[in-house]
Amino acid sequence: MVTGDARDGLAQLLAMRDGEGGAPIADTLGFRLVEVDRGYVVFEGNPGRQVYNPIGTVHGGYAATLLDSACGCAVHSRLEAGQGYTTLELKISYHRAMTDATGTVRAEGRTLSFGRRAAFAEAKLLDSEGRLYASATSTLLVFDRK
Amino acid sequence: MVTGDARDGLAQLLAMRDGEGGAPIADTLGFRLVEVDRGYVVFEGNPGRQVYNPIGTVHGGYAATLLDSACGCAVHSRLEAGQGYTTLELKISYHRAMTDATGTVRAEGRTLSFGRRAAFAEAKLLDSEGRLYASATSTLLVFDRK
Amino acid sequence: MVTGDARDGLAQLLAMRDGEGGAPIADTLGFRLVEVDRGYVVFEGNPGRQVYNPIGTVHGGYAATLLDSACGCAVHSRLEAGQGYTTLELKISYHRAMTDATGTVRAEGRTLSFGRRAAFAEAKLLDSEGRLYASATSTLLVFDRK
Amino acid sequence: MVTGDARDGLAQLLAMRDGEGGAPIADTLGFRLVEVDRGYVVFEGNPGRQVYNPIGTVHGGYAATLLDSACGCAVHSRLEAGQGYTTLELKISYHRAMTDATGTVRAEGRTLSFGRRAAFAEAKLLDSEGRLYASATSTLLVFDRK
Repeated sequence: MVTGDARDGLAQLLAMRDGEGGAPIADTLGFRLVEVDRGYVVFEGNPGRQVYNPIGTVHGGYAATLLDSACGCAVHSRLEAGQGYTTLELKISYHRAMTDATGTVRAEGRTLSFGRRAAFAEAKLLDSEGRLYASATSTLLVFDRK
Repeated sequence: MVTGDARDGLAQLLAMRDGEGGAPIADTLGFRLVEVDRGYVVFEGNPGRQVYNPIGTVHGGYAATLLDSACGCAVHSRLEAGQGYTTLELKISYHRAMTDATGTVRAEGRTLSFGRRAAFAEAKLLDSEGRLYASATSTLLVFDRK
Repeated sequence: MVTGDARDGLAQLLAMRDGEGGAPIADTLGFRLVEVDRGYVVFEGNPGRQVYNPIGTVHGGYAATLLDSACGCAVHSRLEAGQGYTTLELKISYHRAMTDATGTVRAEGRTLSFGRRAAFAEAKLLDSEGRLYASATSTLLVFDRK
Repeated sequence: MVTGDARDGLAQLLAMRDGEGGAPIADTLGFRLVEVDRGYVVFEGNPGRQVYNPIGTVHGGYAATLLDSACGCAVHSRLEAGQGYTTLELKISYHRAMTDATGTVRAEGRTLSFGRRAAFAEAKLLDSEGRLYASATSTLLVFDRK
């Protein structure tokens, strides 16, 4: 993922899925990249009490973090070697509260469109039975790195 | 903040600022409520490497978490005793990347309007010199708790 | 659609599709409701020069109007008799510019989730070959009318 | 506003305010550019029955159109000669319903930040007594035209 990396985005993410690099915040909050394809990625996590808000449910920031990762990496997976990206904005909709009884959740991200200078992605946060907890759409800037 | 709490939202948040309750995720990510007024709150944090993304900057989920807290608590501060709230959606705009050299950042939240069933808030994430790193707007549901 | 209307939302919209009532702005901008199902509606229009921006393409407000209609009516189609709704917020992503050569466009709206007090919808604006021009997500308030 | 126009964005918009060019949709819906400064513009309109929704209030697309114009032109006013822009996304919050009794409304747009490749703007829709009806934030792409 560093400047000078000769691989394209898909190769970089496949390596990350297999243990290379990865986001420190993923360790801090407890989630990980589990599936990577061209324009499609999945992160998984198991939210516990350490990500609670004061009201006794999972803080909205937890869903935001996984959905931001899912949207960003969906776009990342379509980058050519030498391209970079940055997230311009992210909107999250909260459909249902999570607790530590929710279990494993999956954040599935997909690109909606991918252009020369901008890309759009969406993501959904689902539990193991497919119930929708949160969803997101995101706008990203695509550019040449060097 | 529990059902049956006889205080209004402002009193609850003033108590939280002074150490009562608080969000577990605030300990996990390292931020805290530092100012509370009617319709206005401030959270402060000091993002370090533990909230980094794989690209070497602070993950967008960190800003999202502080801005979600700021929008939510701005609305919370205007609740009457017996009222509750929940966040329906949050949109975050990313103006500038943060690193561990950014230092202390402030998430200032304000209510834009506050109705009987819905409220709108906005928040800005600034460094100690007033530079804007991220901003957000949020829609919240307001309801009677009991 | 008036208070006291004994029909549910689906029956109201089926009547509108068949010519009853309808939105004056739909006449002004030239679009119409063409499909209605439970949780799914389609509007169609044919954007011309009268909805252009100064840059020589269709103004973003045109897509916003059709997508707002599609999200709102998708939720409307699931209302029971006596319920009402109002749009709290709408986010539109612009994937591709439209011109008067684009031809007929379809705004397809779907509910993502529908609760007792709030609902979420999404919509896509497509041309006759399925190309995506704009997409939207929306948060709506659901309430009892009387 | 055509390719080859040697003026910067501010000069182009001042000319538009004084009657040059202008958006056909502004005639169709009845609104106009009334103030232009660097990073700040105001559009004014007088919504009537021709922009109503079927429920008997002003359609959300009307506010979206004025707010999109306000956000876009706030960015436009900061372009150098030879630069262009396009709107990537727009989020509108609806605070209060408008009717044909609301009178003249002002959409005030401001840039929040303006970079080499992207810009962010916000706008508010207010009546003559300063009551807030709708607000918006927008992400825009900035590029070299030639």
